[in-house]
Amino acid sequence: MTIDELDTPSVLVDLDVLESNIKRMADYCHQHHLQLRPHAKTHKSVVVAKMQLAAGACGLTVAKPDEADMMAAAGIEDILVAYPIVTARKAARIAKLAERAKMRVALDSIEAIECLSRAAAAQGVDIGVLVEVDIGFARCGVGRPEDSIALARAADRMRGVRFDGLMFYPGHIKSPASEQAPLIEEVNRRLIPHYEAFTAAGIPVSIVSGGSTPTAVQSHHFKGVTEIRPGMYAFLDRNMLTIGVGTREQCAITVLVTIVSNVARSRVIMDGGSKTFSYDPLSVGDHRGYGLVLGQPHAEVIGFSEEHGHLDTSRCARAPRVGERLRIIPNHVCATINMHDRVFGIRGDRVEQIIHVDARGGVQ
Amino acid sequence: MTIDELDTPSVLVDLDVLESNIKRMADYCHQHHLQLRPHAKTHKSVVVAKMQLAAGACGLTVAKPDEADMMAAAGIEDILVAYPIVTARKAARIAKLAERAKMRVALDSIEAIECLSRAAAAQGVDIGVLVEVDIGFARCGVGRPEDSIALARAADRMRGVRFDGLMFYPGHIKSPASEQAPLIEEVNRRLIPHYEAFTAAGIPVSIVSGGSTPTAVQSHHFKGVTEIRPGMYAFLDRNMLTIGVGTREQCAITVLVTIVSNVARSRVIMDGGSKTFSYDPLSVGDHRGYGLVLGQPHAEVIGFSEEHGHLDTSRCARAPRVGERLRIIPNHVCATINMHDRVFGIRGDRVEQIIHVDARGGVQ
Repeated sequence: MTIDELDTPSVLVDLDVLESNIKRMADYCHQHHLQLRPHAKTHKSVVVAKMQLAAGACGLTVAKPDEADMMAAAGIEDILVAYPIVTARKAARIAKLAERAKMRVALDSIEAIECLSRAAAAQGVDIGVLVEVDIGFARCGVGRPEDSIALARAADRMRGVRFDGLMFYPGHIKSPASEQAPLIEEVNRRLIPHYEAFTAAGIPVSIVSGGSTPTAVQSHHFKGVTEIRPGMYAFLDRNMLTIGVGTREQCAITVLVTIVSNVARSRVIMDGGSKTFSYDPLSVGDHRGYGLVLGQPHAEVIGFSEEHGHLDTSRCARAPRVGERLRIIPNHVCATINMHDRVFGIRGDRVEQIIHVDARGGVQ
Repeated sequence: MTIDELDTPSVLVDLDVLESNIKRMADYCHQHHLQLRPHAKTHKSVVVAKMQLAAGACGLTVAKPDEADMMAAAGIEDILVAYPIVTARKAARIAKLAERAKMRVALDSIEAIECLSRAAAAQGVDIGVLVEVDIGFARCGVGRPEDSIALARAADRMRGVRFDGLMFYPGHIKSPASEQAPLIEEVNRRLIPHYEAFTAAGIPVSIVSGGSTPTAVQSHHFKGVTEIRPGMYAFLDRNMLTIGVGTREQCAITVLVTIVSNVARSRVIMDGGSKTFSYDPLSVGDHRGYGLVLGQPHAEVIGFSEEHGHLDTSRCARAPRVGERLRIIPNHVCATINMHDRVFGIRGDRVEQIIHVDARGGVQ
């Protein structure tokens, strides 16, 4: 099948580019003696996860038990749930998976440790704990070294759980690589007191798990990091291109759409809206627009309805015709893939593979 | 099962409220001799569609062939695709459905009519055409009466399609009902020239299909309307409450979440983010915030990550504890339900029904 035979809207993943992105990050990690633990939330796909593992990833990161279930069922044996597990039902699911996979959970509260401990003890398994440290993003994570020490000691004191190390997420660093050095230094200033406290307390920290695609290839500048958890790196998106993380040729994802209405030049409508792309705004730069139209540099995706994308083509040499197709790089790849049950792996014009978004839809 | 036994995040639909909303709109339409053709994009659920039909709806509105397929397979026999169909594959699907259901399509281009005509003629069926008229929303729809007449004549000239009437969507009217009168008058000023042109041309207009939840109970003030297509009315959401379309007690949808982190008072994190609620901004009022927290009037949903909701509880008498649950009215019900494979129908504290979001995930 060729791309021309696909109906729209369809998400296309360029397999050559995907493979190249996966290899490039694996090479970077190998060169810097870092473990690579890709975040599966981006693709939620067993097929892509296995490509990442085949390229040298040590295991996977997930955000929720549904994703962990899917990946463990596919035989993946080393999974970090980078999300606080605080309900008995979720903890029981993680404990069940720990019978066949190495399971770790990142958390920042005593309630989460107690919850995991109860489930693990009931199941007769061990679950590793990473204590999340806030390094400036101000989402989850403890700030004070005495708090991370207290959680580590609690984990080592309780049945079924053990302290394995620390996790942090530099989600606030979205600037171009050339501007990241002072921000990374600030992260290090926040991390080092934790390291010093653990050394003073004589508690070994075997894992320090860092982020994230925007900072991924600067990870060797983060003090003490042993593994990283980028997700978007395998695909990139308009956010990543905007801050210079890769070139347009290194972006593996586009959304294929058809123009369905063009009554007026300034309101050309395509058949992808917020239920195709997601409503995620551009999270960097001028925060404007909802996609990058390939081959039409003056066309702007100015808004979404649920199934309509609103294009401003008033500055284009010609407006697209009804029935014409466009390919558009979405703002946020994780959110876009999450809208679809399947995406299409392409090479050139050929549709080579249907990639199932296996862990989508189950929100828990 | 009770709500307490549900894991989070879970979307709850209050069945008493849902039934009452469905009945109230049906009563309004009955009183004003309007046909009610609810838009199924909101729920994508056969169960809810059948409740609407049982209450007197004349048929359903859908946005895409996947939704039409699902509803026709469930035995629903009168379906309007309120979306321009311009690809051969989609037209063929609509034509196939026309063998067992009364199918109509709204459109605004000769290309769409030709596309439908080819498919209908090949299938040996008839498909009704509604010509979409732009009445100020500036999305799809022709503006000039000569264009709507030309499309109607084209439809009547071509095989397999017939002109049935006009459709419009007042998507720009999002103000409180008390402020809608001048906006509705402006819509009428745009509609009337079309009616006059059709009268002069001797072309009967048997259907005039209007919108939409914000204006639904003002529909008798729109000139010539014979049917309306509200979707959100059955559930309401934060957008609708903000403009006074119903009270909080008339809102059937909430999202049940658990607090997973509360290291600092000003950053309490819940386990629902953009992949649970959608990233849809508040489309009215001050456009701020991502949900309405029940029972915590001073808590604000200030931002989303994919699986994290960021609550500002700094003005609350006390911050929610880790493990505590909240119920939150989402900004946009259609977008929220679309994130989930199933939602939970409740009465009081009891979970009475699992409502499958049947037509979700298939984006075409």
